[in-house]
Amino acid sequence: MEENFILLDAFWEKSFVVDLPLCRVLMEDKEFPWIFLIPRRANIRQMNQLSREDRCVLMEEITTASNLMEQLFPTDILNVAAIGNKTPQLHVHIISRNKQDSLWPEVVWGKQMKKLSEEEKEHNLSRIKAAFAIIFAS
Amino acid sequence: MEENFILLDAFWEKSFVVDLPLCRVLMEDKEFPWIFLIPRRANIRQMNQLSREDRCVLMEEITTASNLMEQLFPTDILNVAAIGNKTPQLHVHIISRNKQDSLWPEVVWGKQMKKLSEEEKEHNLSRIKAAFAIIFAS
Repeated sequence: MEENFILLDAFWEKSFVVDLPLCRVLMEDKEFPWIFLIPRRANIRQMNQLSREDRCVLMEEITTASNLMEQLFPTDILNVAAIGNKTPQLHVHIISRNKQDSLWPEVVWGKQMKKLSEEEKEHNLSRIKAAFAIIFAS
Repeated sequence: MEENFILLDAFWEKSFVVDLPLCRVLMEDKEFPWIFLIPRRANIRQMNQLSREDRCVLMEEITTASNLMEQLFPTDILNVAAIGNKTPQLHVHIISRNKQDSLWPEVVWGKQMKKLSEEEKEHNLSRIKAAFAIIFAS
């Protein structure tokens, strides 16, 4: 099914991080440390539409990405969510939340928030990419 | 670890649905079809703190519960999320969202919403319980 996978337009403006065995990882350019895991499967909107095997891989990729985000950014809790009300392609948000962040303790979805500067974005992106590269090399 | 599992006070007011092999399932009493899956493990706040085996079971229980909610309630998309900013015990929300619902397409967390009447609550609860019972009997 991967050959028929087409990333929805809404994701084109996000920054590419890495392709894991199942998921494409993208980074959000907002003020929160925030990535998306998007299974490279065609026409999937919800986790329960994936095969059992893909669901297992997805859970492990969520775990790997969660551990990585916790190590890179000061994190009081990770918000992990598949919502998709506005963007009908399965994407799992992984967001590092911190008691000092601007929206704590509210959720980030639907809220006004700052965008990262180009410099901040490149800094976070390079750190996340490097961390995934280390995991893959080990 | 199950013997040390203690449900946080915040969940005591929710309606008990069923204990799956890993998770306690509770129902929210708000206007949306909405359940929680809470792994019966002590001191767990995030999915990546569970063992690999538990994570696999959690994903399958999320899938079972997701399929069930879709069958019982008119669903345009399921919102599946582990947030925990306010309640520090791992709980996975599974919410049936509908384009006609009062908050569409916004997320439900942090929003004002109606509570179910006692009658509506009992009706939904009995339907969800019956559906889980059928799955277990099969």
